[in-house]
This record gives sequence, structure tokens and C-alpha cells, in this order.
Amino acid sequence: MSAPENLILSNRFRCFDGWQHFYRHAARATACEMRFGLYLPPQAEHERVPLVIYLAGLTCNEETFPIKAGAQRVAAELGLALLSPDTSPRGVRLPGDDEAYDFGLSAGFYLDATEAPWSAHYRMYSYVARELPDLVTSQFPVDGERIGLMGHSMGGHGALTIGLKNPGRFRSLSALAPIVAPTRCPWGQKALPRYLGPDADTWRQYDATELMSDLGSVAGRPPLLVDQGLDDEFLVNQLRPELFEAAARGAGYPLVLRRHEGYGHGYWFVSSVIEDHLRHHAEGLGL
Amino acid sequence: MSAPENLILSNRFRCFDGWQHFYRHAARATACEMRFGLYLPPQAEHERVPLVIYLAGLTCNEETFPIKAGAQRVAAELGLALLSPDTSPRGVRLPGDDEAYDFGLSAGFYLDATEAPWSAHYRMYSYVARELPDLVTSQFPVDGERIGLMGHSMGGHGALTIGLKNPGRFRSLSALAPIVAPTRCPWGQKALPRYLGPDADTWRQYDATELMSDLGSVAGRPPLLVDQGLDDEFLVNQLRPELFEAAARGAGYPLVLRRHEGYGHGYWFVSSVIEDHLRHHAEGLGL
Repeated sequence: MSAPENLILSNRFRCFDGWQHFYRHAARATACEMRFGLYLPPQAEHERVPLVIYLAGLTCNEETFPIKAGAQRVAAELGLALLSPDTSPRGVRLPGDDEAYDFGLSAGFYLDATEAPWSAHYRMYSYVARELPDLVTSQFPVDGERIGLMGHSMGGHGALTIGLKNPGRFRSLSALAPIVAPTRCPWGQKALPRYLGPDADTWRQYDATELMSDLGSVAGRPPLLVDQGLDDEFLVNQLRPELFEAAARGAGYPLVLRRHEGYGHGYWFVSSVIEDHLRHHAEGLGL
Repeated sequence: MSAPENLILSNRFRCFDGWQHFYRHAARATACEMRFGLYLPPQAEHERVPLVIYLAGLTCNEETFPIKAGAQRVAAELGLALLSPDTSPRGVRLPGDDEAYDFGLSAGFYLDATEAPWSAHYRMYSYVARELPDLVTSQFPVDGERIGLMGHSMGGHGALTIGLKNPGRFRSLSALAPIVAPTRCPWGQKALPRYLGPDADTWRQYDATELMSDLGSVAGRPPLLVDQGLDDEFLVNQLRPELFEAAARGAGYPLVLRRHEGYGHGYWFVSSVIEDHLRHHAEGLGL
């Protein structure tokens, strides 16, 4: 299939014998231009490769993961493509959207907003769960039947919620220092009402701990790897992994939650454990 | 030995079971505050470890290498400390020092300036060759007898010139996409006269190709690894590795110069080959 006219290569760089690409395109879900990074490993030159989507956190964009995580080395070894979307719509400006780091620009929370003016553009759930993977699997040598999903912090929230709601689409799942219970932490309690309105019942669909508690059955669900640094400044007030851990235990979900002494929240931590995550995905995706 | 009062820890992060530190201190050579990064691998908790100094290029600072190169993983495996100085004095402001990316701030060229006003502060040669290694080996569990030196672009120029002039001090040596002949490229032809004055003879001591041509004997010199991307936008006009290669051949120097199809100038390239460089240094430093 030829590339749609709205898919534009901004830049590409040779990296670990593959290519780190940066693209922009006119996205339907968010009704504005969106940017993403795509690493294609050397194996993609002669076969369709599995894809791992990485959702980044607050303040990040589509470049953060490719620049800071050191993931391409492992992806090149395993034969994995890596897709890194931006963290919010950025092609439009809405009132107040850059006033705080935790709402608006870089803070899309991977949901479909229902409140104006956000509802016209802040539809990152639809973008990440459907539109972007469809675009990438149709335009690049990537296997649409073998897609994994992971994320960090706000992106860990995105990965867990989108993954739990779409088990057939995302066959492997993991998270790093994720926000697991946004309805019970300040970041979520600020963002969810603004994007979704005052009805707390609507927030639950974007809360991984609530989704986990509501799971009817875990049959066929992918095993879940979560890593958390114990010197993470956001651990106690924002992240609260113990809530998700209890819900997973209650549901009988195959969760491995690892706690790491001394590690903080940022990419010093992400880079230290990224290899384990990509190997987890490679196994889940049949590599 | 207790830390001198002028050595201040700005930040530290757990990374690959070691610690990535960022320090600032009042430097004598540059007569201003300087910043550096220091990665201590897990082995440094119970023994003195060898040190590799990495000199960064134009526009970079002491954070660039720690954030972008993915080197800590390999350093943690091998038991190497990594020292990343800033690329110029930054604690003072001199007239016009931020007007261009290739002169002044972030562009110290690892020399001791003799022209005012630069001569009072732009003494990165003395800082990198002597003061900073002395400070680090006296204050941290680092072995002052096992120090390697490497660098990228302008930092490759720094590593080659400082290394060739101090073979007893730096026991292993390598460079990535280095400026090898600053007297014969626009970057050097702009910077050297401003820092050193109009006498071209004084420039030769900071030109790796000239230094290589002047070597009396290569006995006991460390083998040299140089990597160069062939899609590097600066290859033809600024870097000119063939000049250095010819000088090394003439001198009988043990140089391995590898050319890499498709790779550019930046950290997408650096990260792709950093493991080979650190293994080269580990071997040279007796690990």
C-alpha cells in the first residue's frame, strides 16, 4: 500500500543497524497533526516484525523514549519494532493547555475526553488503541496480529487501561512506574473531571485498578510485568502500586510486580529495566 | 579523603545498579564553576575501578553523554567509571560567547586559550588533562593509574590531542566521528585563531593529525579505535578522517578506523557503537 499523503517522514536515523524514524500525520481521532517515532529493526528489511507500543509520561513527547531509553539495541537484537506516540494532541492550542505540566499539552492521559473544548481533540484513547496501530501496520512491515503495549508513568496508566480493555488487540503488556489508580491520586483527580466531567462513574473506565477489579475472567489474558522504583518521588502520593497489586491478586491476574531499591521515577530507571520489558514482550509476541 | 567544600553533588540517580552523579565545583584551571557527570558502577562499592573520560561535542554539556549514549549498561557490566565533563566553561559570561554554536559556550575545543578574554577561563586542556582527573581520582573510588579517554566530534578532537600528548596518563584511547584536523576545517579555522592568536604554529599542538605526524615513536602507545558514520553531514568538510588515517599509517600507529554505512553524526550513531568503545577501553585498562 502506498503511503497516504498525510504521512510525512520528518527525519530518520540509522541506529543499531535499523532505522529510527520520526513521522507526522493528520490524525482523524484527534483532528490535528500528530507526531510519532517508529524504530524498525534490521529484521524488518525482509519480514513483518512484531510491534511494541510505548506510551510516555507527563512532560514527554514522541522523542523521549527513542532518545533516553536505550531500547533500540534490544529491539534490534530481538527483531521488534518500537512505536512511540506523542503524549497529547499538539497540533492545536486550547485555552490553558500549557499552563500546567499535568493537564493539557503532554498530559492527554490516553482517554477520549467528553468535555468541551477537549472533546474535539483530546481523544488519545482512540488514537492509541486503534488509529495509530492501524496506520503503522498498514504502512510498514509490522505484524498487526502481534502488538504489545507498555508505558511509563502516565503512559503506564495508558498501557494498563488500554491493554485491559483490548485484550485481543494487545497480546503482551507491561508498565514502568505506572499511575494505576488515577481516581485515587492527585494527577488523576485533577485531569479526569476536566476531561470527562463530574460524574465519577465515567472515570472508572480509565482507572486500571477499577478495570482489574471488574475483570470477569483472566483466561487468556497476557501476563503483566510492572517495575517500580522505591525511591520514586511519586510513589506514595501518585502511583500507589499496592492498590493495583491487590486488585490483580483478587482477580487472579498473572502479575509480576518488581520493586527496585534506590531507583527513581525517570529514564535512569526506565533504561535500567527496558531490556527485561522488551524480552517480556518478545516472549508474549511469540519471538 | 573528605570532599573539598567546593565539590557539590547536584543530583544522583540509581542506574544499572550503580549511580549516575552530577557534580559542580570551583575549578582552578577555568577560574569558574564547572559541572561534570560521573557514573560509578556497582563494582565501585567495594574496589577502585578504572575510569573512562568522555569528551562531548559542540552544543553538548555534561548531561548529554549520560542521557543519550546508553553507556551505563556496559560500564556496569565491565566495572568502569564514566566521567563526562562539560564542553566549555559555563560559569562565566564573555563577550559574544553564546552568539554561535561553534565558538564560546559549549565550544571550548579542549585547549588552553592564550588570547584575551578567553585566556582567563577557556583552559579546558588543563582542566580535562589534569585538574578534573586529579579531583575525581582523589575523591572517588577510581584508579588514577587506569584512565582511558574518548570523545565525540569536537570531543573526539579533544580525546585524540590530549591522549596523544599524554600517553602515560591515558592508557586507552578512542574517538567517535572526531574532528581530526582542525587546522584544515572550518570549525577549527574559526576557533583556533580566536583562542590562540594568529600564529599558525601554535595551532598545530591542538591538531591530532599534526601531532600524529610529529610522533617520534609509537612504542608503548595505546591502540586507537575510531568510528565514523558515512552519512555524517560533517564528514567531508569538517571531519576528514582520511587525513588522520594517512598520518597514522605514516607513523605506524595502531589505528583501527571503522566506517559505517548509513550512520549520521549524532547520538543515534554514538549509542550504536558505544559498547565496542567501552570494551576497547576495558581491554586497554586491563579489565
